[in-house]
Amino acid sequence: MKQELRFERSEFTHRLDAVKKEMKARSLDVLLLSEPSNANYLTGYDAYSFYVPQMVVVALNHNEPVWIGRGQDGISASMTTYLSKNNIRPFPDVFVQSALSPYDFVAEIVKEICGERVRIGVEMGGYYYSARAHADLLKALPRASFTDADLLVNWIRLVKSPAEIALMREAGQIADAMMYRAIEIAAPGVRECDVAAAVYHQMMAGTPAFGGSYTCSPIYLCVGEKAIAPHAAWSDDPLEERTVVNLELFGNRHRYQVNLARTICIGSPSQKYQKLADVVVESLEAGLDAVIPGKTAEQVHAAFARNLAKHGYEKDSRLGYSLGLGYPPAVGEKTVSLRKGDQTVLRPGMCFHMMSGLWLENEGITITQPFVVTETGYEALTKIPRQLFIK
Amino acid sequence: MKQELRFERSEFTHRLDAVKKEMKARSLDVLLLSEPSNANYLTGYDAYSFYVPQMVVVALNHNEPVWIGRGQDGISASMTTYLSKNNIRPFPDVFVQSALSPYDFVAEIVKEICGERVRIGVEMGGYYYSARAHADLLKALPRASFTDADLLVNWIRLVKSPAEIALMREAGQIADAMMYRAIEIAAPGVRECDVAAAVYHQMMAGTPAFGGSYTCSPIYLCVGEKAIAPHAAWSDDPLEERTVVNLELFGNRHRYQVNLARTICIGSPSQKYQKLADVVVESLEAGLDAVIPGKTAEQVHAAFARNLAKHGYEKDSRLGYSLGLGYPPAVGEKTVSLRKGDQTVLRPGMCFHMMSGLWLENEGITITQPFVVTETGYEALTKIPRQLFIK
Repeated sequence: MKQELRFERSEFTHRLDAVKKEMKARSLDVLLLSEPSNANYLTGYDAYSFYVPQMVVVALNHNEPVWIGRGQDGISASMTTYLSKNNIRPFPDVFVQSALSPYDFVAEIVKEICGERVRIGVEMGGYYYSARAHADLLKALPRASFTDADLLVNWIRLVKSPAEIALMREAGQIADAMMYRAIEIAAPGVRECDVAAAVYHQMMAGTPAFGGSYTCSPIYLCVGEKAIAPHAAWSDDPLEERTVVNLELFGNRHRYQVNLARTICIGSPSQKYQKLADVVVESLEAGLDAVIPGKTAEQVHAAFARNLAKHGYEKDSRLGYSLGLGYPPAVGEKTVSLRKGDQTVLRPGMCFHMMSGLWLENEGITITQPFVVTETGYEALTKIPRQLFIK
Repeated sequence: MKQELRFERSEFTHRLDAVKKEMKARSLDVLLLSEPSNANYLTGYDAYSFYVPQMVVVALNHNEPVWIGRGQDGISASMTTYLSKNNIRPFPDVFVQSALSPYDFVAEIVKEICGERVRIGVEMGGYYYSARAHADLLKALPRASFTDADLLVNWIRLVKSPAEIALMREAGQIADAMMYRAIEIAAPGVRECDVAAAVYHQMMAGTPAFGGSYTCSPIYLCVGEKAIAPHAAWSDDPLEERTVVNLELFGNRHRYQVNLARTICIGSPSQKYQKLADVVVESLEAGLDAVIPGKTAEQVHAAFARNLAKHGYEKDSRLGYSLGLGYPPAVGEKTVSLRKGDQTVLRPGMCFHMMSGLWLENEGITITQPFVVTETGYEALTKIPRQLFIK
């Protein structure tokens, strides 16, 4: 059978050890992981199957994690993880969107491995841990105690290994290729959806050396009046002679994702707008220069905000977020934010998207920079110049 | 400001009336909708912003729904909904991924509109209603009573209006164009990721008359040994001289989605495999012939299963599901399944994907048909022949 394990076996062991150590520190016997990125991180599991209930069980008294998911996806568990056969536990299709709860199936496996009086950590804020999932598990495991262990694995994922950073660099190369393709194709008369088409083509085609994959969010292609909306859908209107295209896109390599945004002006921008671009780029550089191991997330934000304020602007959303391995609906690790109050100390191997986009009342501009923290500062994960592009 | 309302104002009124009627029948004062498809259905709201907490509040004592979401997305609410300004209630960015709960913000609005002693329906099984969301709301609204109203709106969405069916037909045209493009490009030596790239290009480019949009799931391009896995990720390996490509793809028009799968054989298939394809197509036709208003979902399944059994095969996953308006991570409405035990009576305007894919021990095959139930039978939403394609 085809095997597609993306990392050395020893790297998975290292990750699992770190998680078990944290479980011990929090007095947890069992961790039930519903987030597909955390499941992937600990087992390698990769398939788009998490829209039906799916979990990875980590138990202190059990060597390997246990994958639980839909019957027909067990084959992907065999192909993409290192788990032994008895730790791949698919449930029959009768549990899918029916009156039966797949969480009863999960509960039986927890009981089998660890018994009933266990301390269980769950991801209370996870996208794939619904209110009902929790209610069903509470009911099925009445003797267990439940604790919120949301983001436990996310915090361990924060510092990337050299092998992970290598994938981030590849994802960055794809993001660059996508942005250059967009700049190439964007022109008056071209439909917005055709710009999107070209960008998506590049997303998957990647580079001649390696291909890309689907991303955690759709690209954001916000044109003209919609340039002040960060998450709008594109249309099939043709681009006008003079307009602004705010494009945020994502390069993805084996689920590792790099986010990048640029503004493309169709026709010459006004002097005022060019000035705004200069301010954003200058502030972005000021923020990046503050990226030094040992400094805090809020210090990076402060450096950016200070420079922006000098020119009379303010950004009311956070300046950025950590990112790496992800699945829809979002790549953000929900751990560190580059903003006031976040005192996380930067360490080499952390990856961020400095999301220096500004959405003002009448105009929006998005020139951003993904980066990895190095021993001495930062390494940009994309190479495209930090500037306004004019067509 | 740009306005992008996709349906007549009267259609939204009609939808809201149907939901309020059902709320009355269930003695609910308030419905808190977390599913983006349900929010879109009732207000028109369309932006990829639901990865942060976002809700639409429907209150019996309040004329319009109320949109609550992130500050920077309020602009999309103004652009894509019919809601009046005071029913668009964005929260500040400090609520995003921080110690503050956006559900406290939601609770304050519920109290303001309806008071504290209210009966609230929530979507317990929703992708965007986490265990923590529910816990936070319970805490913030201690005098309210909570009821599971999951799928309340989904069931109302089940029968599509003529305007919705028109969008489904357009989505079907995009799906057809995507599949033809895949068949055109798939050949020995072409990388799997380049087939994906061509298909995604078509997904967004749509047709000359109208463009497409991002879909609720990535396409499934499962090649060779992975043809037995329904939800595997593609690779960047080149296609071999003789191999099987199982491709499930999705056409999307203004969030209305049509699912379609075909198997493409690179090189001549074995006689045995061609025979399997004939069996699947014959069974699919038998299933489709059973689609008649007044019949039940399980009768459709039975017609398919009977034919399949005649040839000694069995499909252990359900035969299909209702679909229509959707967002990631999945388009399925989680209402009707074409399978044994589902006694839902078919009515004109319901849309399904007959997912007649078979994943056997050593081979997989996917030849399927999306359709809308008509007054007398069904209308196929895609036109591509139901057959094996051989390259």
